[in-house]
Amino acid sequence: MKKKRIRDYDIQIGSLQTGHLNSISDIPGVTVGHSTIDTPTHKTGVTVINPCQENIFANKLVASSYVLNGFGKTTGLLQINELGTLESPIALTNTLNVGLVQDSLVSYTLTCCKKDDTPISSYNPVVGECNDCFLNNIKERVVKEEHVLEAFANACTDFDQGDVGAGKGTICYGLKGGIGSASRKITFDGHDYHLGVLVQSNFGKTEDLIINGMEIGKNIKDKITPSVTDKGSIISVIATDLPLSSRQLGRILKRAAIGLGRTGSHVGHGSGDIMIGFSTANVIKSSSTSATMNLKILNEDLMDLPFQAVIEAEEEAVLNSLIAADTVVGYQGEIRYGLAPFLEEYLNV
Amino acid sequence: MKKKRIRDYDIQIGSLQTGHLNSISDIPGVTVGHSTIDTPTHKTGVTVINPCQENIFANKLVASSYVLNGFGKTTGLLQINELGTLESPIALTNTLNVGLVQDSLVSYTLTCCKKDDTPISSYNPVVGECNDCFLNNIKERVVKEEHVLEAFANACTDFDQGDVGAGKGTICYGLKGGIGSASRKITFDGHDYHLGVLVQSNFGKTEDLIINGMEIGKNIKDKITPSVTDKGSIISVIATDLPLSSRQLGRILKRAAIGLGRTGSHVGHGSGDIMIGFSTANVIKSSSTSATMNLKILNEDLMDLPFQAVIEAEEEAVLNSLIAADTVVGYQGEIRYGLAPFLEEYLNV
Amino acid sequence: MKKKRIRDYDIQIGSLQTGHLNSISDIPGVTVGHSTIDTPTHKTGVTVINPCQENIFANKLVASSYVLNGFGKTTGLLQINELGTLESPIALTNTLNVGLVQDSLVSYTLTCCKKDDTPISSYNPVVGECNDCFLNNIKERVVKEEHVLEAFANACTDFDQGDVGAGKGTICYGLKGGIGSASRKITFDGHDYHLGVLVQSNFGKTEDLIINGMEIGKNIKDKITPSVTDKGSIISVIATDLPLSSRQLGRILKRAAIGLGRTGSHVGHGSGDIMIGFSTANVIKSSSTSATMNLKILNEDLMDLPFQAVIEAEEEAVLNSLIAADTVVGYQGEIRYGLAPFLEEYLNV
Amino acid sequence: MKKKRIRDYDIQIGSLQTGHLNSISDIPGVTVGHSTIDTPTHKTGVTVINPCQENIFANKLVASSYVLNGFGKTTGLLQINELGTLESPIALTNTLNVGLVQDSLVSYTLTCCKKDDTPISSYNPVVGECNDCFLNNIKERVVKEEHVLEAFANACTDFDQGDVGAGKGTICYGLKGGIGSASRKITFDGHDYHLGVLVQSNFGKTEDLIINGMEIGKNIKDKITPSVTDKGSIISVIATDLPLSSRQLGRILKRAAIGLGRTGSHVGHGSGDIMIGFSTANVIKSSSTSATMNLKILNEDLMDLPFQAVIEAEEEAVLNSLIAADTVVGYQGEIRYGLAPFLEEYLNV
Repeated sequence: MKKKRIRDYDIQIGSLQTGHLNSISDIPGVTVGHSTIDTPTHKTGVTVINPCQENIFANKLVASSYVLNGFGKTTGLLQINELGTLESPIALTNTLNVGLVQDSLVSYTLTCCKKDDTPISSYNPVVGECNDCFLNNIKERVVKEEHVLEAFANACTDFDQGDVGAGKGTICYGLKGGIGSASRKITFDGHDYHLGVLVQSNFGKTEDLIINGMEIGKNIKDKITPSVTDKGSIISVIATDLPLSSRQLGRILKRAAIGLGRTGSHVGHGSGDIMIGFSTANVIKSSSTSATMNLKILNEDLMDLPFQAVIEAEEEAVLNSLIAADTVVGYQGEIRYGLAPFLEEYLNV
Repeated sequence: MKKKRIRDYDIQIGSLQTGHLNSISDIPGVTVGHSTIDTPTHKTGVTVINPCQENIFANKLVASSYVLNGFGKTTGLLQINELGTLESPIALTNTLNVGLVQDSLVSYTLTCCKKDDTPISSYNPVVGECNDCFLNNIKERVVKEEHVLEAFANACTDFDQGDVGAGKGTICYGLKGGIGSASRKITFDGHDYHLGVLVQSNFGKTEDLIINGMEIGKNIKDKITPSVTDKGSIISVIATDLPLSSRQLGRILKRAAIGLGRTGSHVGHGSGDIMIGFSTANVIKSSSTSATMNLKILNEDLMDLPFQAVIEAEEEAVLNSLIAADTVVGYQGEIRYGLAPFLEEYLNV
Repeated sequence: MKKKRIRDYDIQIGSLQTGHLNSISDIPGVTVGHSTIDTPTHKTGVTVINPCQENIFANKLVASSYVLNGFGKTTGLLQINELGTLESPIALTNTLNVGLVQDSLVSYTLTCCKKDDTPISSYNPVVGECNDCFLNNIKERVVKEEHVLEAFANACTDFDQGDVGAGKGTICYGLKGGIGSASRKITFDGHDYHLGVLVQSNFGKTEDLIINGMEIGKNIKDKITPSVTDKGSIISVIATDLPLSSRQLGRILKRAAIGLGRTGSHVGHGSGDIMIGFSTANVIKSSSTSATMNLKILNEDLMDLPFQAVIEAEEEAVLNSLIAADTVVGYQGEIRYGLAPFLEEYLNV
Repeated sequence: MKKKRIRDYDIQIGSLQTGHLNSISDIPGVTVGHSTIDTPTHKTGVTVINPCQENIFANKLVASSYVLNGFGKTTGLLQINELGTLESPIALTNTLNVGLVQDSLVSYTLTCCKKDDTPISSYNPVVGECNDCFLNNIKERVVKEEHVLEAFANACTDFDQGDVGAGKGTICYGLKGGIGSASRKITFDGHDYHLGVLVQSNFGKTEDLIINGMEIGKNIKDKITPSVTDKGSIISVIATDLPLSSRQLGRILKRAAIGLGRTGSHVGHGSGDIMIGFSTANVIKSSSTSATMNLKILNEDLMDLPFQAVIEAEEEAVLNSLIAADTVVGYQGEIRYGLAPFLEEYLNV
């Protein structure tokens, strides 16, 4: 049974059109795969985002990052910022498994490069993380290389959202968070482009939750044992086929904070809030030997639409991560409820 | 007649208590003064924020800045970021008068230092700006040193808001913007602290305006000739007596973007959105000769309340800049309406 | 009589070839002009760098900046960093005249835009500064708009170096500093490119001066009244016709610090060390309305040569600023000697 | 037999006094340990720097980082920059083993925290790396958790330098690089402080090597098969007991680039050049519950000496990494010579 999404409740975020799938996979080439670990003691997993269907190490993409709150352990941003390119799939997992997943990405990419004879001696793996220690026995670090490989094997355009993959154990606004995605369509000069967001949500206090302007969190707060502190993180992966320089992309990533804020976030101290973005419009071949290349970029005066798109998609992706998540019982018996029944009660549907 | 503020309409932003004045002048020592230029061709002026009542060049304060959108001409941020201190009052004006006002701050501070025998040979003036060219004949650069001095002479804790000083000619969400302020009170260990925001608002499209979750902009849009592009800027001056390092203050400034976003901003391409902040809790005497000093700072684990405070105060300051502004007719006959009548109609009050 | 340059002493910095003029004006379109104020009480002035021969406001260039030490008052960097473009000539002057010169650039550019019917309502003037208060009675702020205009009128490719323009009153390594320039030629795919540096030098302690590895400062120290503290600044303007993105250009600017360090600099606390760079290879027309554009950029794997070029040109530009400067007597009778006689004695020439 | 250091050749870098050990372990509490992997196919290892003798997770230190060239994979800098603190020992290894070593640091720190009952659910491991693929069969990723633990077990103040630990397989200026260290003593108000640097050196072209101003690299170039490209990296760990804020520490780290440049570096494109620093003067207890704390910091006007200290120590640490390294034969038969015989020939000693 397909999970509901926030639009299924007649809640429309913003004014721009969504993409066909209303997800990050509206960007051609982007696929997402999960490996979910769901045992009595472990609620965690891995989610991978493939930015393209080629070996990205040999076909680097323009990339950027924005650190809204650096209280986090995401790896790979130094090189993204220096070179403005991404040469790795993006993997998401729990905080204490970052090293292991990073190591697994190295294995994975060495194998890919061996297959297609791409020379490789250095490599910049990108791993984002949220701390799921409330529901998951995080210190046992249950994620292994097999889970990373499974996530890659599962990658598709029609991926699950909610309490899956790296979102299996995360909590958001005191409810069950997880993986959520949304997209927007933008048309310039008759050409359709897309911008999509995928979040791993793990932040916020119940009372702060706002859904499309409705302060529904205050309503929910008395019905559950609320979160008392805003700990966690949110990783936002932002993809687009708009032609952008890394500087332009960075400007877009920064605006995602506005969408996040509209769901009620105060960007709490304990929450590592990181945006990682890439554009598929220009491919930088690692084998290229010509002295110069043409980078296709957007007329800077047209940036307002991408700004609006990322704000809307970020807000909707967070809400989708909540509405698609089922209730999960943690390893110590704690319950984190899915949003759906509360929203349905609130809306009388 | 005192102008109304957004709380006078029973609109309460957030959940924290305001300071006594609900303005930046709740921070002890902070005063604000305006010089308003209001002629048929000129709608502009100067607003100065005094961070303390002493000569700030001799009594520097911990400071920081955050550039949300750098499409602006604010001066003085390089040194603030390098040294983490403010040694100047902050002046706001229109875009093309930044140089003149900067020059006037030099005159003003040289005079102050002469008076109290403070040695000075270098000085970092801080000037923020918005582009008021829609209502004001900006190219004539009507602001002169006398206006800067007048603004200083008018500085007080009970300053006007709305279409005054540097806010005389600005527009916000297609309505009349201007100067707005708000504050929040925070208590730690039985000690009351305050955090206040003052904005010069000049951004946004009418249809995007949100007031406390209500999408009132869509309602207003059809009643006026709306702004078609989001050009302008918003300068936010953020003051507090919380003991903070410049790094901690910088984290707070970054969150102001969330408050701004809750009023409907998309942080448009053409809008230079700059946050400048200072804390009055530590004074760095320029005459100090001891090798070390103790900087009193906040326990980092307590940052969530200041984060919430700045988000709420920023949102309310923007709304106050709108509600306190009267309708202004520009030099080419264009009208920008105050928000008050539209809000009253919307609320049926 | 033409001033000598460091190469005239058989001192060859680095291994790359220089451009024809061995100055920033080797980059086609770049010209430099001075206005020198030399009276008994005033030793100061203005130097302007024209990045192109067209109206740059209508023909913006890719730009970047690097703040090595932000204890300075340079204006315009916020927008350069946000948009990656330069829309203004670059003017250099003394610290307390930054506002006035900024204001004069506004006048100048409004006039230019009026002449060629370029719409303008906003504008980002770029002004760098050094503090020449040791030789110049800086508090009297003698620079006026006429000096800025005179500097523009004097702009040419064969400009003077040493104690001229904004370098009239600066001191460097306890000697007379000033304006210096140098360039390097780089060939890729059979095409010659140039990278040039112009400095306004005003930093360093005598004993630290190193010339091409020779610790000549220790030798000079006992012959003069040395500088006791490293106060001042150095502004480096870096131009190139290499096709670069603003990110790539920023990487190049950062390396200029290495060249500076090789002359003996410790990047002292009191010295605002700022690099401002532009590339003339791509012109961004402000009138462009197409949705996308092609930005020609360099293959990132080829960055090592530009890195070496900027390091060598920066080192040589600083040395040229010293060797071309004549002895200057300050307004309070202090003497700052030119380097030439000391170097000649040291080299026995 | 103790390895020689650059001072043993009467080569004195700069003018400040060294610490007693002339190494990073002059800072009280700092120890360094190696695990060296030296087999026919593997020349690599792990080096750990303990910033203090307590559990640093419970006793965080003020920290900062500076990215001179971000083409590298160092982890942990996001959180250091956000919070200004270090909560982890620093481990160095080869590029493709970063994930494994990061994972091992998690194990190590979980164990430490269990031992002394420190609550832990999140943790920011800091791992720096150089690419030793020229001498080491890097793709086999031979480093395992046991090596990390061995490095910790070996930690002491009198550690080896040269081709040891994470420096076993690195190359520098076409010679054998590795681990090097140096320190400087600074006295303020009668109190002695120390600043020390430890590098993992892996960068540079032979012809560029400069030793204390002598262009010895040009001399060596013809005697060996030189490096043709500047690939690699240099990680610099900088420790001090000076009381500093993270902002002040960051200013110091930035100057290390100058010392690096004086050895001949062009900060090549392919070299990830990262500075990580900490100050032991303030301990931030993770168990602290008081609302405020006093951070002891240095009078900003006194920063020139620490700036000079870091420049000198960085330069000397790089030279020590070269002079202490013995010749190593790589897994494919390539030879990288130690500097010592070349220097001795050059100096006729």
